Amino acid sequence: MKLDTSKKILIVGLGLLGGSYAKALKKKGFTVHAITRNPEDITYGLENGLIDAGTTTVDADLIGASDLVVFALYPHVFLEWIQQHGHLLREGTVITDVTGVKGCIVHEIQNRLKPGVEFISAHPMAGREVGGVQNSDDAIFTGANYIVVPTERNTPEGIALCKELGEILGFADISVLTPEKHDKMIAFLSQLTHGIAVSLMCAVDDADVQRYTGDSFRDLTRIANINDEMWSELFLANRIALLDEMDRYRETFDRLYTCIKDGDREEMRRMMRLSTVRRREFDKKA
Amino acid sequence: MKLDTSKKILIVGLGLLGGSYAKALKKKGFTVHAITRNPEDITYGLENGLIDAGTTTVDADLIGASDLVVFALYPHVFLEWIQQHGHLLREGTVITDVTGVKGCIVHEIQNRLKPGVEFISAHPMAGREVGGVQNSDDAIFTGANYIVVPTERNTPEGIALCKELGEILGFADISVLTPEKHDKMIAFLSQLTHGIAVSLMCAVDDADVQRYTGDSFRDLTRIANINDEMWSELFLANRIALLDEMDRYRETFDRLYTCIKDGDREEMRRMMRLSTVRRREFDKKA
Repeated sequence: MKLDTSKKILIVGLGLLGGSYAKALKKKGFTVHAITRNPEDITYGLENGLIDAGTTTVDADLIGASDLVVFALYPHVFLEWIQQHGHLLREGTVITDVTGVKGCIVHEIQNRLKPGVEFISAHPMAGREVGGVQNSDDAIFTGANYIVVPTERNTPEGIALCKELGEILGFADISVLTPEKHDKMIAFLSQLTHGIAVSLMCAVDDADVQRYTGDSFRDLTRIANINDEMWSELFLANRIALLDEMDRYRETFDRLYTCIKDGDREEMRRMMRLSTVRRREFDKKA
Repeated sequence: MKLDTSKKILIVGLGLLGGSYAKALKKKGFTVHAITRNPEDITYGLENGLIDAGTTTVDADLIGASDLVVFALYPHVFLEWIQQHGHLLREGTVITDVTGVKGCIVHEIQNRLKPGVEFISAHPMAGREVGGVQNSDDAIFTGANYIVVPTERNTPEGIALCKELGEILGFADISVLTPEKHDKMIAFLSQLTHGIAVSLMCAVDDADVQRYTGDSFRDLTRIANINDEMWSELFLANRIALLDEMDRYRETFDRLYTCIKDGDREEMRRMMRLSTVRRREFDKKA
């Protein structure tokens, strides 16, 4: 299947990401439908030209008529949906998702689909600090990474289609990772960093601290403003990989702690030089 | 003493901060002299209008003629300087500094000064990622905090003079803290955050990680680009307070770790909500 504008796309879950997908796809001339829980979100989507039609019920005709279905749901809701309504997807339909962790969900979903329906998983690494379809904006994809996460059960065509979707949405960098590599990378780059920010913010013991703060504390806690329902689910869904990255980070943190405690200035400086070199490399590539 | 432009100001150590002080003070019409190690820095200061005169030798006449002396040196260099040359300061001179930690240095310096010379300590919370007088810029003071750190040995006049200096330099917020409160605040807000950034950067075990990174990793490691000579000295100079803050942070980090390990989603969400509330408060005040 080639993603030309004759294809009908269905978004399940019209929130921040689902709405941003819809907006980008409508701009490119696709017919976009939506199924979502809240009727107000459908109204918003229609009034703002994000979708051509939408419903809050699981409409068999709408599902059966779709060529591509994008699931923009919480992991456990996605799993439940497929379990309950997966039989409504017609043969030849490709489905994809936006889930932030993969190992716990990709195989489960693929196992539950009937033959002829392909699930090719993707992670659009984009978001905003505010949720909801009212805040959707396809500009969040500009300059962002889009990761296609196939398993051995995916077809080359399915993978190509998913990449094409990333291009249409306007992502800057499109890559392919296994579920395991994806989850390790996310555990380190995204989940560990959010865990650090939350921990640091929870460690504040002086209300006046904010009066004096400079840029460093501001930088480290920007992401401490976090959707607890979503992130707690994603943390637990990626438990093993995340604990592993937390262990490794705590090892280097404890090494620095020991340097300070023992007055080992040379080792401390070695760590600081390593971090400096790496950060400069990083700036060069950015 | 009132800081009118008849007063002669001497900067000892013409680096990033010393140079930025000089620049701001010259703009306000003061006579600014400098003593620094590197002759090229004097040349730069003269050619760029930062100073009226300067020398690389410890010039007794220059020191004796100064009303206010600003020491912009590493803590141990500052201590050595006072020990060796403190007798050259004439009675009535006020001296101040820019040192990032206070407990380890303020009392030591005050103990070594002859009667009639007052040391009133200050911490200008401003800087850049690049050092040296060539990068000095008085714009770094705009919007920044300036903290006066007196002891029981300081006079109301000395404290007032030091505050006035902060105003002349263009700082947005001028406050007064004891050395102990200052060091605790710095340990948490500045040193702990830099320690976290360095540890996180040292924990990277995949060179390709940088390819996928989003804003959160970028935010948390910006300050991992660090001057190892200066920061290792400041970390060790504030050892007790820093270890204490590291302990407290590690406690909350470990609490989050345990939530993930035990699947305690409620406690995890409680931490996330606390961090979110605090960060929003913080944004409101900013």
